[in-house]
Amino acid sequence: MNRPILASIDVNAFSHNLSRVRDLAPESKIWSVIKAKGYGHTLDAVLQGLESTDGFAILDITDAQWLRDHAWGGRILLLEGLFHQNEVDLAVKLRCDLVIHNEKQLEWLEAYQNRSGHEINIFLKLNSGMNRLGFRSEPYRLAFHRLHAAGYHMHHMTHFANADQVERSPSVGEQMDCFDRAIAGLSAPISLANSAAILWHRQTLGDWVRPGIMLYGVSPTGAYADIVRSDLQAVMTLRSEVIDIQELKKGEHVGYGGRFEAPEDMRVGIVACGYADGYPRQAADGTPVWVDAAGADGTAVICPIAGQVSMDMLTIDLRGAPSAKVGTVVELWGKEVPVDDVAQMSGTIGYELICALAPRVPVTIK
Amino acid sequence: MNRPILASIDVNAFSHNLSRVRDLAPESKIWSVIKAKGYGHTLDAVLQGLESTDGFAILDITDAQWLRDHAWGGRILLLEGLFHQNEVDLAVKLRCDLVIHNEKQLEWLEAYQNRSGHEINIFLKLNSGMNRLGFRSEPYRLAFHRLHAAGYHMHHMTHFANADQVERSPSVGEQMDCFDRAIAGLSAPISLANSAAILWHRQTLGDWVRPGIMLYGVSPTGAYADIVRSDLQAVMTLRSEVIDIQELKKGEHVGYGGRFEAPEDMRVGIVACGYADGYPRQAADGTPVWVDAAGADGTAVICPIAGQVSMDMLTIDLRGAPSAKVGTVVELWGKEVPVDDVAQMSGTIGYELICALAPRVPVTIK
Repeated sequence: MNRPILASIDVNAFSHNLSRVRDLAPESKIWSVIKAKGYGHTLDAVLQGLESTDGFAILDITDAQWLRDHAWGGRILLLEGLFHQNEVDLAVKLRCDLVIHNEKQLEWLEAYQNRSGHEINIFLKLNSGMNRLGFRSEPYRLAFHRLHAAGYHMHHMTHFANADQVERSPSVGEQMDCFDRAIAGLSAPISLANSAAILWHRQTLGDWVRPGIMLYGVSPTGAYADIVRSDLQAVMTLRSEVIDIQELKKGEHVGYGGRFEAPEDMRVGIVACGYADGYPRQAADGTPVWVDAAGADGTAVICPIAGQVSMDMLTIDLRGAPSAKVGTVVELWGKEVPVDDVAQMSGTIGYELICALAPRVPVTIK
Repeated sequence: MNRPILASIDVNAFSHNLSRVRDLAPESKIWSVIKAKGYGHTLDAVLQGLESTDGFAILDITDAQWLRDHAWGGRILLLEGLFHQNEVDLAVKLRCDLVIHNEKQLEWLEAYQNRSGHEINIFLKLNSGMNRLGFRSEPYRLAFHRLHAAGYHMHHMTHFANADQVERSPSVGEQMDCFDRAIAGLSAPISLANSAAILWHRQTLGDWVRPGIMLYGVSPTGAYADIVRSDLQAVMTLRSEVIDIQELKKGEHVGYGGRFEAPEDMRVGIVACGYADGYPRQAADGTPVWVDAAGADGTAVICPIAGQVSMDMLTIDLRGAPSAKVGTVVELWGKEVPVDDVAQMSGTIGYELICALAPRVPVTIK
């Protein structure tokens, strides 16, 4: 009763990917990072697929409320801490662990009278070279002492800028050196490793790892080969249908700007998926689309994008798909077409595409 | 009680932009195109700001239901018609006008027994060179006769591929020639003009114009100068706050990949807005951000993006903003920073950015 586009979320793939994190970091507890509504996968799906995690790491305190309302009894980490002083009571009531990354947040906690009867876990964030959130080394040590003196249960935390690539500054090694110096003598559990560090920097695992993108079966580097090598599985599949077919004469153009020109007489398929669904407008001609049962022998084939993606539609070259017709099912990304490959053809990374899935696309959880 | 990011929608700007369409096309009725939840502006805001339109053009029949449930009594056009035969009853019940662009849809309507007691309006879509949806000329004429014979109230419709640019094929002139030939002798109201055609191709106005992007105060070409020249106003404003400040030493890097390197000792501001909010990950260093009361004299200043936009944050160069501090308000796009300019710095067009506003961003209507 609607446009044929549909995203489906495979909760078994979620569970599988989480078990892969356990294999890679058997001594560590796991913060499953589910900000941005589980990177676009919905919190419902996350809760079903990742229930054996040790904790969920989020951004919005409203998501903490949602998790508690849905009977999540494990730990919850607010990755950027609190944005306003008046949130402290709610955060404590929801039993959230808090990141502290600036002086204001520190002052709010010093001023807070904890009458909850249990310890509050703080993940103090060091800026070890990413230069985004966190304290530099000397203020970091002072903040640690102040919060410890105020009765909080302390943890050390930092974030890597380049765990997914080499020859970029700062390196993981440089950030680790900075971290080790900053925490010297300050005993507390540590949390450092994002997905790329879990996969490729085993010395960073520590007490709590923080996998994000790998839980969704998407590569931290953008290279799908990483996912295959790491035995991870795609969780989101985005499918739609061919809603029209055009017979082009040689030399005719397709879509806005006429970017694709037919090199011969040929058919193009119009697919009900556009950039207002979250598909990247910048996808180049040649970006792969899987087309079900469309080959001459009735098997599935890959057809390339032909022409500028528009708001609600995209167009594919059907020369390899003689059996395609109105109603033929296509996959934009998922089990058959790695979202990493679509991202690479669009000048971005899979992170952006899965998070950008539009609210108008229905989501089903399997 | 949440992250400080907020989108606000100015319904007076909506009304103003609609009145500009009336000025430009005084003889035509107006289909206000509000697909993709009003290009990301919410249907609530659209209904408040554009209530004096003649009709709303949408994609999802669920949006038609929403409009009727919210007391919209005017016309509604389903821009891609129906996706399934079993939707015909609902569409008639909701008094939708229907686009017909393929043979299947035509057959569904021929098979339909209209017992509603009123005529059904059909906008038959000609493929005049865009090669996306619609019939070629000969099948178009046949379809027109068949639907007319079946008792439907007919309209002619086509869509331009290049109304926003010259020297691209097919041109507006070529498409108009094709259109005129195809409809020769078939008397019916016509609908051709999108925003760019309304602004720059007055000969195309016809009986119904179909403004989309111009209603939102965003340029069809991507050039903000068009908006100024056309006296249109931005409708969406996206604001957030500085949540942390880092003091960089010369040579230090910022964010993932370390893309920005400090050319001298300087401050950067961390803003609570990232690509999972809908801000483009591909925004280059130098993309403008408006920073309130941050200049040496307390006035607002424009600060450039410095470093890769990440999922939940972006970083700005505060060298021109000595008064900026944690809590300082910034505008990502809107009245102060044209979304067209942000799009140009990101290799895309404003359409994509406003539609991509993420569900996690709260929206307020003023």
